[in-house]
Amino acid sequence: MAKEINLGILGLGTVGTGVAKVLLEEGDLLTKRTGMRFRLKSAADLDWNRDRGVDFAGVHTTTDVNEVLNDPEIEIIVETIGGYEPAFTYIMQALANHKHVVTANKALIATKGTELFLQAKKNGVDLLFEASVGGGIPIIKSLREGLIANKFLSLYGIINGTSNYILTKMHQDEVDFGQALREAQMKGFAEADSTLDVSGGDAAHKLTILASLAAGAMVDFDSIPVEGITSITTLDVDFAKRFGYVIKLLAICRFFGTELDLRVHPTLIPKEHLLAAVNNELNAVFVTGNYVGDTMFYGPGAGQCPTASAIISDIVDLSKDLLLKNGERFSNRTVNPEEKATLLPLDKISNRFYLRMFTLDKPGILSCIAGVLGNHGISISSVIQLETHGQKDVVPIVLLTHKAPEKAMDNALTEIAAFDFVRSDILRLRLF
Amino acid sequence: MAKEINLGILGLGTVGTGVAKVLLEEGDLLTKRTGMRFRLKSAADLDWNRDRGVDFAGVHTTTDVNEVLNDPEIEIIVETIGGYEPAFTYIMQALANHKHVVTANKALIATKGTELFLQAKKNGVDLLFEASVGGGIPIIKSLREGLIANKFLSLYGIINGTSNYILTKMHQDEVDFGQALREAQMKGFAEADSTLDVSGGDAAHKLTILASLAAGAMVDFDSIPVEGITSITTLDVDFAKRFGYVIKLLAICRFFGTELDLRVHPTLIPKEHLLAAVNNELNAVFVTGNYVGDTMFYGPGAGQCPTASAIISDIVDLSKDLLLKNGERFSNRTVNPEEKATLLPLDKISNRFYLRMFTLDKPGILSCIAGVLGNHGISISSVIQLETHGQKDVVPIVLLTHKAPEKAMDNALTEIAAFDFVRSDILRLRLF
Repeated sequence: MAKEINLGILGLGTVGTGVAKVLLEEGDLLTKRTGMRFRLKSAADLDWNRDRGVDFAGVHTTTDVNEVLNDPEIEIIVETIGGYEPAFTYIMQALANHKHVVTANKALIATKGTELFLQAKKNGVDLLFEASVGGGIPIIKSLREGLIANKFLSLYGIINGTSNYILTKMHQDEVDFGQALREAQMKGFAEADSTLDVSGGDAAHKLTILASLAAGAMVDFDSIPVEGITSITTLDVDFAKRFGYVIKLLAICRFFGTELDLRVHPTLIPKEHLLAAVNNELNAVFVTGNYVGDTMFYGPGAGQCPTASAIISDIVDLSKDLLLKNGERFSNRTVNPEEKATLLPLDKISNRFYLRMFTLDKPGILSCIAGVLGNHGISISSVIQLETHGQKDVVPIVLLTHKAPEKAMDNALTEIAAFDFVRSDILRLRLF
Repeated sequence: MAKEINLGILGLGTVGTGVAKVLLEEGDLLTKRTGMRFRLKSAADLDWNRDRGVDFAGVHTTTDVNEVLNDPEIEIIVETIGGYEPAFTYIMQALANHKHVVTANKALIATKGTELFLQAKKNGVDLLFEASVGGGIPIIKSLREGLIANKFLSLYGIINGTSNYILTKMHQDEVDFGQALREAQMKGFAEADSTLDVSGGDAAHKLTILASLAAGAMVDFDSIPVEGITSITTLDVDFAKRFGYVIKLLAICRFFGTELDLRVHPTLIPKEHLLAAVNNELNAVFVTGNYVGDTMFYGPGAGQCPTASAIISDIVDLSKDLLLKNGERFSNRTVNPEEKATLLPLDKISNRFYLRMFTLDKPGILSCIAGVLGNHGISISSVIQLETHGQKDVVPIVLLTHKAPEKAMDNALTEIAAFDFVRSDILRLRLF
């Protein structure tokens, strides 16, 4: 007789419905593969009037979350409400009731991780969150289990599908940011309010989670420097191409001893790099470990079915916990919620830079700019200065620099911006 | 107090030494991450005279495998001898002694998997083999655990590093097969005897393992149609490029209901596909599941450290088994060793083809060839016929076809080969 595991779901939106569907339709497959039977006992949502395309016969459907949270038979609860509240309160309560929890809630894990993991630890249960980063890609399992022997050296993630879709369209179809965003919204890859996506905030949530796993200690979300993609123009995409690069919104985690360099910003990636081939709404995380070397994990970063795939994987893992001898646990030990990761401040980091500005079209300008950069110890590797680009008397100048400290670049840009021949904001991007 | 797990290693070659090194040098990290202490108690090898660059102080080193196999304290044994015998006998004996086993031995798992897994099952222990495919890439864990909710639709693997290195050099540096092979050997990516690599045999071993996991049933290694890369010339690489393709040795697993289409052969991959960007000695497996969609797992397919990384991951997983209540197990349930997978015969499969032959340089030849193909219902999508290519009166003709049954192509090629204007073997490759 297969051991039966009773499950509850909180929140039957797109993701929760997907999880219910897989549990209800793939029961035999899961039992064959795991030796256990997964029974969706209860599902809570405020709205039971709409048709979700799933037959809930045999499932206790309710509008009262307490019928799930307080059911002594239920051992694993899936939180698919999303957002901060009431999701946070419900997860804390589920853990307090000694139930394992699975969530896809990246914002919550990124900002309330310490409290949540301590609550899990205190109550001898686990909180898993594979679906919170990279949708269906088993990146969290790979970091925690598959690559467990490794000290991580770096992670580079294309982990916001909306931004990647927009930048891909800008590169491939030469449309501008606004049009690419509208296409993404039409195709369902972007929300009506895409602020969190295009500002880099969503990628920063996910980076917080990945970096915490890689560091084995909690990363403070608010300390991560974040830049979005809203300042990228077709001109920048075109210049990047001429230099042999593709612009991607990259979440970066690099280890310098015990200190972490964490950033989210648009980045010029050499077109030969595997990450440059990650297009449309797809996600990828490029992970380097001291033993394994370079690896990459690629796949869909969102969507009902990929997210359900990841959540089911967490459910199966948690159900293994239920087979453990009393008092044994293992799932969450790779991150210590009581330890804080130390971030390297951005001004201690060196990068190669892409600079783009519009200036008056008169002689001597490039030498002025080069002079300021030189005074700050920054040397130029390539320049493109074009003829008037549709704007009277104003021309774009684009520079790539060799590696230079962020601080030196800050100071140089302040001086350059003060020249009165500079007639636009200066866009500063970084190279991979 | 951390639970202590006693380990033994059989075979201290490159891989075994790597595993010993990680266990001896990363003990604290592994304990921090798992809550367990991994103690390398004994290591057996016939030769203890050479310096392995590892300090074995505190480890019982022996030339007698029985001191490992029969040690009641040792709970997990790592087999890194390689080859069929005595590795097979030792693993069977270790399992009979109720010890969990970890191996990187792909040839053994591919050809003796059924016996080995049944032996493990009978004795209530597990046999793990993450390092047997894709080196350090956690592809086996991902198939078994991360993607456990999915019915697999297809897997495409670049899983032989030597062949991929050779083909990459042929594409990028325009060197011929022989020179690319010598370079691979000089750089340590190919063995002195590279037959198993360039013949496709090694990729077929690995495909057997991946396909068995994806199917949940055992695949018969000997039933897989295999073609190697030794017939690929610089001319083919060049023609493929003109058509917009890259030639890769691909291991293919496609599901048609309960039947599997399994093959290993050189394949023309569109240059925009992510697999086309997997270069040099690197490996990748492109996996499509019904829920997750398209995913790809990329990384080093061999080498001391990547292989050790994978083996340590298996060791940690098995050590979790040791925390289970009596009689509980889970690691191996995704494949039933008593169930056999059904293969679709090659002649029931349709493909797009690349055909290359040398013919006399006279009029009407193309129409003869096209006529035969047409009679067999095969239509041509592109043709390149060039001027004399260094060989007097003989010219290369290259054709791409639309999708056609393998059987129809067999018959057509028999007829075409019989024309007396055909002055070479006909190379037949398949398109992705």
